[in-house]
Amino acid sequence: MSLDAVLARIDNDLPDALDRLQGLLRIPSISTDPAFKADCDAAADWLVADLRSLGIDASKRPTPGHPMVVGHAGGTGTHLMFYGHYDVQPVDPIELWSRDPFDPQIEDTPRGKVIRGRGACDDKGQLMTFVEACRAWKAVHGTLPGNISFFIEGEEESGSPSLVPFLKDNTDELRADIALICDTGMFDEQTPAITTMLRGMLQEEITITGPDKDLHSGMYGGIAMNPIRVLARIISSLHDATGRVTVPGFYDGVPELSAEISAQWDALGFDEAAFLNAVGLSEKAGEQGRSGLEMIWSRPTCEVNGITGGYAGDGFKTVLPSKASAKISFRLVGTQDPHALRDSFRAMVRAMVPADCSVEFKSHGASPASVMATDHPAFEQARLALSREWPNDAAFIGSGGSIPIAGYFKSILGMDSMLIGFGRDDDQIHSPNEKYDLESFHKGIRSWARVLAALT
Amino acid sequence: MSLDAVLARIDNDLPDALDRLQGLLRIPSISTDPAFKADCDAAADWLVADLRSLGIDASKRPTPGHPMVVGHAGGTGTHLMFYGHYDVQPVDPIELWSRDPFDPQIEDTPRGKVIRGRGACDDKGQLMTFVEACRAWKAVHGTLPGNISFFIEGEEESGSPSLVPFLKDNTDELRADIALICDTGMFDEQTPAITTMLRGMLQEEITITGPDKDLHSGMYGGIAMNPIRVLARIISSLHDATGRVTVPGFYDGVPELSAEISAQWDALGFDEAAFLNAVGLSEKAGEQGRSGLEMIWSRPTCEVNGITGGYAGDGFKTVLPSKASAKISFRLVGTQDPHALRDSFRAMVRAMVPADCSVEFKSHGASPASVMATDHPAFEQARLALSREWPNDAAFIGSGGSIPIAGYFKSILGMDSMLIGFGRDDDQIHSPNEKYDLESFHKGIRSWARVLAALT
Repeated sequence: MSLDAVLARIDNDLPDALDRLQGLLRIPSISTDPAFKADCDAAADWLVADLRSLGIDASKRPTPGHPMVVGHAGGTGTHLMFYGHYDVQPVDPIELWSRDPFDPQIEDTPRGKVIRGRGACDDKGQLMTFVEACRAWKAVHGTLPGNISFFIEGEEESGSPSLVPFLKDNTDELRADIALICDTGMFDEQTPAITTMLRGMLQEEITITGPDKDLHSGMYGGIAMNPIRVLARIISSLHDATGRVTVPGFYDGVPELSAEISAQWDALGFDEAAFLNAVGLSEKAGEQGRSGLEMIWSRPTCEVNGITGGYAGDGFKTVLPSKASAKISFRLVGTQDPHALRDSFRAMVRAMVPADCSVEFKSHGASPASVMATDHPAFEQARLALSREWPNDAAFIGSGGSIPIAGYFKSILGMDSMLIGFGRDDDQIHSPNEKYDLESFHKGIRSWARVLAALT
Repeated sequence: MSLDAVLARIDNDLPDALDRLQGLLRIPSISTDPAFKADCDAAADWLVADLRSLGIDASKRPTPGHPMVVGHAGGTGTHLMFYGHYDVQPVDPIELWSRDPFDPQIEDTPRGKVIRGRGACDDKGQLMTFVEACRAWKAVHGTLPGNISFFIEGEEESGSPSLVPFLKDNTDELRADIALICDTGMFDEQTPAITTMLRGMLQEEITITGPDKDLHSGMYGGIAMNPIRVLARIISSLHDATGRVTVPGFYDGVPELSAEISAQWDALGFDEAAFLNAVGLSEKAGEQGRSGLEMIWSRPTCEVNGITGGYAGDGFKTVLPSKASAKISFRLVGTQDPHALRDSFRAMVRAMVPADCSVEFKSHGASPASVMATDHPAFEQARLALSREWPNDAAFIGSGGSIPIAGYFKSILGMDSMLIGFGRDDDQIHSPNEKYDLESFHKGIRSWARVLAALT
């Protein structure tokens, strides 16, 4: 069996695959910080060279920001487009790392071996699972398993400013039958997952101004409007007593789960109590009558991510502040329209601001939810392939996070995406001491070999 | 007339009096910053020497913090205790000063000459009005006008930690018939004032904890309780729709104004619109049905002085924070009991915190209001004396601020206080470019001479 030979090759080649991953991890390709611009470039060069070593026609493609890496294997049959990103998050606070984040090493932990370093999971470790699967296939068969292209971004952690223009300028080149995105997680360590729902996001910052300067609350307290009080009233009105969001029209386009998905999720046996206990909580705070998985995967939310106003240092100052502001985000699902909701939210806020105060809005983004085309035959093929590699059958899951790339592939290229990844909840992506389990890496590579065999 | 000779002496001696004030202002006696400990000591020495030059038995009295200056003129008759403070506020932000804050100079301004420097008004300029009145009296008559004592503090701007123990340890020495406190302002530049109501203050900091660590709002948004939302609900419940504070029992001990004071305040012709316009507002925000002067002088209030939680820097982070906190202060009047209100406030907050969250309280002070004994004959005598010096008759006014010393004099020494001061609203005390009008200084000295003549 050709797949068995590929899997055996993957097993034998694991030490070298780890060496290669460590090489990529040593490049500090932090995309948000201009000081690391040359390193982002070096990471792109590294990938171009590695893909070329597999016989892929790969090149570094300039953008106004960091370069894209694009490569094509050529050939016929189902055209698959693989997406990952080579840039990583900053490492602050550096003092909380147990080691140099860019000197990755294999560590023994009570739960198995891990590779620790910035990007070990997000997304260098994940993207290399796909590349290594291709490498093993090529070593065994002398060729890749089909018509595979690569599109590897270097700005994912800094808002992807060059992404949309690049997709628009290269639609014909980048459009494939389906995209394979490796930037998500497993359901749990025994259950692989295909993420089929990604929440969208509307991010708004509001600033209330009352008096035109900070005042002494002894002189003005009582008579002058306090913008913190105005802001608190606005925030406390955003949810009703049952936990539903009160922005007019908020639930337009929010679908109920299909009976099929509902049954699948029930079968996952999600432990709500354990999920909450892990962060010191015991009660679900969201919409009444919804399951925990619905709350984090398929229901829209409104959260306050930050608030500031007046004096918040040590001690006490009796200031009556001029301004107070909050950052508020909405996670969106189904066909909720982020732009219509922005208008509705702003109108609601304006109506609550006293005549004497003013409000300023700043947008920090508005992207719709992505719901994958699970009726595409690739989804069931991939689900079966993953189920053969892991103890439990693969699940179609939702994700609370927002990964805009799938939405752009659909809206700009008309291309469906399938998200398969091997991250775990404790990988500490975006935090100090990021790691990737060796099992995720090893079985991730084997998983892609199985998926490629099934799809091509 | 002996008073006329004293007033003439004051007029002639003004240049020298200004020199002396500048000498005191050059000493950077910032009490909150340990780097200026020796300077605080030097300011106390300066005052001891100056009072001794008037024949007063003055000494520097050690405390665990900065020293007190105590002096007694001796003699018989009504015993008056003068209170002021020699310490000053820090000068940050120093870059906003038009000159070195400790190199005081006389400046011409469109509204007359001022002396500019830290402490020019608060409280070195004010306390020297009293000292200079005594000096002129002594120069003319060879003696002070009566049995006058001095009590000058060096920790007023840093919470007066040594004050209560010092008063308790020296009750017999410090108890007089009435205290004269010079640390307040005029009603306006033509209308002198005796401040007869000082609001008390209850200062509370509350911190709500939800999850035991900061979470990603994509993973946990919806299902996990957000402490900012809890805090906003608490803050927005502290006032009802008519602007009244909702803490149970809050209005116990809040008196209505007497008809007499009410009429006096109406006669002041307070320009609410101008008061609000000066800070960019146009509508009173406090309790419905109350006048502006009531709101800032005689009604209790609840204000949020600061709030913080989650991410408030540039850009946006979709954090679901573990903690959110606010600093909340209540201005108290009449016989409102700060300790009972603290209990009531905390019980109200606890009842609003979900079972899953916790709340911590930190007290930043609790002091009752001071209502002066205006039936003491000294008040009417002083009012008439002040009225002779200034274009308009003196007014009995309230003050939104809290000056705890009068309360301690009453509770520890059983001594009433009379607050007379010559500060103006635009003196920028506690801010950059503090100043004191030469007219405040000159006519302030003359005012004290008149008041002393009337009281002794």
